[in-house]
Amino acid sequence: MHIELKRGSRTKLYIQIALTLADRIRSGLIEPGTRLPSVRKLTSDLGVSLVTVSKAYAELEAIQLITCSQGKGCYVRGVQESERSGNIDKMYPVQGNGEKNTPWNWQMALVDYLPRAQLWRHFDTSPQVRYELHMSAIQPELLPTREIIESAYRLSSDHPERMAAYGSFQGDRELRQTFADHFAERGSQVMPERMLITSGTQQGIDLVARTFVGPGDVVYMEAPTYTGAIDVFTSRGAKIITVPMDDEGMRIDLLTRLCDTHPPKLIYTIPTFHNPTGITMSAQRRAQLLNLAQSYHCLILEDDPFSDLYFRAPPPASIKSMDLTGHVVYLKTFSKVLSPGCRVACAIADGSVLTRLVAAKSTADLGSPLLTQKALQSFIQHQYSAYIRQLRDELYTRLSAASAVLEAHAPPGMFWVLPDGGLNLWLQLPDGIDMRELHRHALAAGVSFLPGSACYVGEPDTSNLRICFTVTDMERLCEGLRVLCNVIANEAPLKGGAAADRLPLI
Amino acid sequence: MHIELKRGSRTKLYIQIALTLADRIRSGLIEPGTRLPSVRKLTSDLGVSLVTVSKAYAELEAIQLITCSQGKGCYVRGVQESERSGNIDKMYPVQGNGEKNTPWNWQMALVDYLPRAQLWRHFDTSPQVRYELHMSAIQPELLPTREIIESAYRLSSDHPERMAAYGSFQGDRELRQTFADHFAERGSQVMPERMLITSGTQQGIDLVARTFVGPGDVVYMEAPTYTGAIDVFTSRGAKIITVPMDDEGMRIDLLTRLCDTHPPKLIYTIPTFHNPTGITMSAQRRAQLLNLAQSYHCLILEDDPFSDLYFRAPPPASIKSMDLTGHVVYLKTFSKVLSPGCRVACAIADGSVLTRLVAAKSTADLGSPLLTQKALQSFIQHQYSAYIRQLRDELYTRLSAASAVLEAHAPPGMFWVLPDGGLNLWLQLPDGIDMRELHRHALAAGVSFLPGSACYVGEPDTSNLRICFTVTDMERLCEGLRVLCNVIANEAPLKGGAAADRLPLI
Repeated sequence: MHIELKRGSRTKLYIQIALTLADRIRSGLIEPGTRLPSVRKLTSDLGVSLVTVSKAYAELEAIQLITCSQGKGCYVRGVQESERSGNIDKMYPVQGNGEKNTPWNWQMALVDYLPRAQLWRHFDTSPQVRYELHMSAIQPELLPTREIIESAYRLSSDHPERMAAYGSFQGDRELRQTFADHFAERGSQVMPERMLITSGTQQGIDLVARTFVGPGDVVYMEAPTYTGAIDVFTSRGAKIITVPMDDEGMRIDLLTRLCDTHPPKLIYTIPTFHNPTGITMSAQRRAQLLNLAQSYHCLILEDDPFSDLYFRAPPPASIKSMDLTGHVVYLKTFSKVLSPGCRVACAIADGSVLTRLVAAKSTADLGSPLLTQKALQSFIQHQYSAYIRQLRDELYTRLSAASAVLEAHAPPGMFWVLPDGGLNLWLQLPDGIDMRELHRHALAAGVSFLPGSACYVGEPDTSNLRICFTVTDMERLCEGLRVLCNVIANEAPLKGGAAADRLPLI
Repeated sequence: MHIELKRGSRTKLYIQIALTLADRIRSGLIEPGTRLPSVRKLTSDLGVSLVTVSKAYAELEAIQLITCSQGKGCYVRGVQESERSGNIDKMYPVQGNGEKNTPWNWQMALVDYLPRAQLWRHFDTSPQVRYELHMSAIQPELLPTREIIESAYRLSSDHPERMAAYGSFQGDRELRQTFADHFAERGSQVMPERMLITSGTQQGIDLVARTFVGPGDVVYMEAPTYTGAIDVFTSRGAKIITVPMDDEGMRIDLLTRLCDTHPPKLIYTIPTFHNPTGITMSAQRRAQLLNLAQSYHCLILEDDPFSDLYFRAPPPASIKSMDLTGHVVYLKTFSKVLSPGCRVACAIADGSVLTRLVAAKSTADLGSPLLTQKALQSFIQHQYSAYIRQLRDELYTRLSAASAVLEAHAPPGMFWVLPDGGLNLWLQLPDGIDMRELHRHALAAGVSFLPGSACYVGEPDTSNLRICFTVTDMERLCEGLRVLCNVIANEAPLKGGAAADRLPLI
C-alpha cells in the first residue's frame, strides 16, 4: 500500500490517510477480513504520530469500513456477498472475520500504486442479477456481431500473412483511412496521420494520463463523471478538481475562476450525452472551453462514446473539430456501438502530443491486435451508417418505454431528465435514502445499478444512481425498473445519518 | 518535458539534465530540428543555475546530439533519413535545421512523463531494408496463421453473442483453462484462477510496473536486457540497477551484494534463452534468486518468451514453478510463437499480487479482446505441441545456417556464442567500431540490426549488436549476414574516440 501524504496540504494528515484507505477498501483492493497494519507499524511506515494513525482508523470505524477491538487490531468489515464484485476468480475463500491463512500474507506489506479501482469493482454482474441495468452497454442481440465476424474472416483469410506480423503501433493504416472517411461523411476532415488506434477509449484515457499527467498535476473533470476516468487520473497522483454542471454542461464560469488559482494541466470532458448525466454541452460552452485551454496551454481530453446515438438532432460539433492549435485529444470508440469485445477506439491528436501518445502506446502494449482492427473495417465502410440509423430508433424506443415505467412507478421525490442520446439515465432519488442499503436490497431483488457515488472523486454520499436503458431486452428493462422503483419506495430514509455527517470528505 | 532532478544524488545536476535530454533525443521523442528551450528558460523552469544548464547543453553538444550557436540557440541535430524510425506517419516535414512551423509549437513546453521510448524507435523497418534482422520475431510464413483464423472463425460464429459482450478483465475462462492444460502437460500445475490474460508480455511488464513500481523504487535487471522493459521501468521513475551476467545468467553473487545497500522492490529477469544474449540461467541460480526475493519480500518478474523454443534439451524449470510464497509474477507469451498480431500472453501470479494486477488491467483497457483470445484457444488445445516440435527443427536449421555464414565471413575480433534456444544471436564486434556509423552503413547496405546500446539503461557505447536469425527466410538470412559481415569488416575503428570518452555516463 502506498499512502502519499501531502504535508502542508489543507487536508489534515489523518484525513488523507483515512481517504486513501477508504478508497482501497471500497474498491475491493483491500479485501474484507484483512487485518490492517497495527497503529504502531503504520505510524513508523509513514513517519507520522500515533495520534494521527489512531484518528484515521477511528474515522474509518465511524463510517463502518473497519472494526477495531482492543488487542486484536483493526479488520476490514465483511461485505454482503451480494455486494461483492464477481470480477476475479477466488482460490482462497475469506475465513470469517479473521485473516486469510495463505503463504502470501507478506504481500499485504507490498507497496503498490493502485489507489482506486471502482470500475473493476462495479463492472461485473453477480449471477443473481436478473435485471442488469448497471453497465453502460448495448444489448448484445442488437449488435452486428455475425457480420463483423464474417468480415473479419474474409479480410484475414485473404491476407493471412498480414495477421502473422506485428501491427503498427499507431494502428492499421487501412482502418485509420476508414475512420477518416467516416469522419469526412460527417463533415470533419481528419487525416489518418492524426489518429492512433487504442484498445477502447479506456486505454485512450490511460495513455493520455500516463503521458501527460503526473503527481500533483491539476486535472479538471465534470462532477459527476465516468468512473473509469477517475480511476485513471487518481492512479497518476493527479490533483483532481471537479466542476459542477448545469443543463448546458460543465460550468465554464466556475472552471475559469478555479483555473485562476489552480492552472490546469488537463481538462477531461464528455461533452455529448455525458456519462452519467446525459447532458450535452452547448456549442458556446465548447468554444469557451477551447479558448480557456488555449490561454492556459493545457490539454482537453474530449471523450466521445455516444455522439452517433442521438435521438432528435445531431449534437453540436466536437470540440476537436474547432481545434486548430493541437490542444484537444479526441477519443471516439467504435467498439461500444459495434462490438465491445473487439476493443477498438480511435484517438485524434496533433503534433508532438500525437507522437508522444504513439510512443506511450508502444510501451504499453506494442500496438492493438490487427485481427480486431480488421474485423471492424469492412463493416464501418459499408454498413455502419444504415446500422446506426436503425440502432438509434431501437434505443429511443427503449428510452420511451423506460420513461413510461418511471412515470407510472417512481415514488415521490424521484427526478430524472430524459437524455437526447446515449445509453444512460441518471436518477435523483428522494433525500435521506441510505444508498448502500438500497444497493444491497436492489441486488437482492435482482436489479443492478451503478451507485452515483462511483461517479464522483472520493465517493461522497449522493442520492443518485445510473441505470442503462439499453443493456437488457425491453421486457427485462421494464420489469427491472418496476422492481427498482419498488425497492426505492420501500427504502426508509436514513435515520440520524451519523456516518454521513461524521466525515463528509470521504 | 519533465526533468526530475534528484538533488543530493551523486550524479551531478548537469549530468542528470543532459542524460534526460539525451534519452529523449535518442528515442526520437524530441525530433531533429527542434529548438531546445533557451538556457535562461530552462534555468528558471528547473530552479537551477545558468551554469548548470549551460554545462548540460555543452555535454549534449560534445556528444553531437545538439548544435548551439550564439544568438540562435540550441537545436537537435538532424539524423540521417536512414536512421529515422518509420514508426509514425508524418504530416509536417522537418524544415532543414530550423524550427518546424506548425500551429502547435506551444506543445514543446508541455511537460510529459515519457522519458524514453527506444522500443518505439527501433521497431519498424524502413523500406530500403532488404535483410531485416533487427526484430525478434518468427518469419510469418512459418506461423500457423491460416489455422488460427479458421479456428477463430469457427468458435466465434458458433457463439456470436459472446463476442458482442465485454470479456472478463482477467481474461476468457476457457482460454485460461486451455493454458492450464498446456502447463500441466509440461509438468506445472497452474490453476486458471492464477492467470491474467494480457495483450502481449509487453503489457504484462507494464501492468506489473504501474502497479508495483514507483519513483525511486529499486528495480534490478540483467545487463543487457529487453529494450521494452527498460522503457517501462524508466517511465515509472524507477531506480534501475543492472547486474552483469556470465554463462549461467545473472550474477546472483553481485546482486546479493548490491541488495545489501539497495534493497530491491522488483527483480526483472529473462532466465531462459535471455534476450538479447541467449544465455540460460542455471537451476541453481534460479533457486538462489527466489531465496533472495523471499528474504527481501520483493517481487521477481520472470519474463519467458522462449522456453518452448529449445534446440537440445528442455531448459530448467521456471522460477515460478518453485515459488510457493507468491513472490514471482511469471509472463508467458503465446503470441510470439503463434501470432504476434493477436497479442495474447498470460501472467501467472498469486494472492493479492494477482488481484491488484487484474484491477490494473481494468484501469488500463477493460480487458483484452475476446476475439483474439478465442482465436488461439483451439489451436493451443489441439495442434500446439506438434507445431512447436516442427518449429524448433526449423529454427535450429536457421541457426546452423547463420552460424556457417558467420564462421566463413566474420572479420577477426568478432565473437558470438550459439544459443540453445530462442530467436536471437548476440554479436560482440571488434573493438573501436563507431556503432552509430556502422548502423548507418548497414542500413544503407540494406541490413537492419538492433544496436546493443538499446539493450542497456542509459544507452552506453557498446560494441555489441543483436540479430534475429528467424525473422526472414533462409536465403535472406544468409545473404543479409554476409552483407553485415562485410560492412563490419569495412568499418574503420573509431579514431580519437572523443565523443565516447567525453561523457561515459550517457
